[in-house]
Amino acid sequence: MSPDEQLVRELHSTFIVAINAGDHARLLTLMTDDVVLLGPGQAPIGQDGFSATHSGAHQEHQIHCISELREVAVVGDVAYTWCQDSLSVTPRAGGDTTHLAGHRLTVYRRQPHGRWLLARDAHTLTPVER
Amino acid sequence: MSPDEQLVRELHSTFIVAINAGDHARLLTLMTDDVVLLGPGQAPIGQDGFSATHSGAHQEHQIHCISELREVAVVGDVAYTWCQDSLSVTPRAGGDTTHLAGHRLTVYRRQPHGRWLLARDAHTLTPVER
Repeated sequence: MSPDEQLVRELHSTFIVAINAGDHARLLTLMTDDVVLLGPGQAPIGQDGFSATHSGAHQEHQIHCISELREVAVVGDVAYTWCQDSLSVTPRAGGDTTHLAGHRLTVYRRQPHGRWLLARDAHTLTPVER
Repeated sequence: MSPDEQLVRELHSTFIVAINAGDHARLLTLMTDDVVLLGPGQAPIGQDGFSATHSGAHQEHQIHCISELREVAVVGDVAYTWCQDSLSVTPRAGGDTTHLAGHRLTVYRRQPHGRWLLARDAHTLTPVER
């Protein structure tokens, strides 16, 4: 495994840990300034939209994401991953847990100092029965 | 605009024309052998799955896709695009048209002879009211 592939795998893992911890400040440091996040039934989200959406979701819900990498490809200064995700969302005030499942295609860009950041992401998560 | 960006834009356009024409043989020539296509509520699709899905859909429905590029990025031997799509699906036997809308994140790979092929694609299309 190349050092860059290792870095992209670590970024993927760090991102999911921060999602589950609701560590919003950390998440923002893992994305490019011009990040674009796409998902079913929602308008494209940038950093500003992500801040609003993610903070609100964590205040009201406990979120747990499991993400398994199916592919990591590093080609020069760009990398992309395909992962299979499952997500559970439980209202903190009580109530039923919603389960979602799907995949993500993510594009990463290498920065001038060799650090990798998440730049583009499209997920296909939809509610599923358990 | 670089020659490679022009080629990726043409590939995007050719792909949509072939989708709307139901030109299945042409579509397969525009993808890598190991293509992966992701969408909400469906298992990942490769070339085999695409053949079955696309042929069946065109036999039973008239399909019209409009796809507007929002971004084209070429970085060495990889390119990615973000586009906004709307799709109408009308049963050939008669019946109501279903409208879908969403976005796509697509990754392309440059081949040894300079040709570009679609390698990975995740769409977020879901039914919408018109």
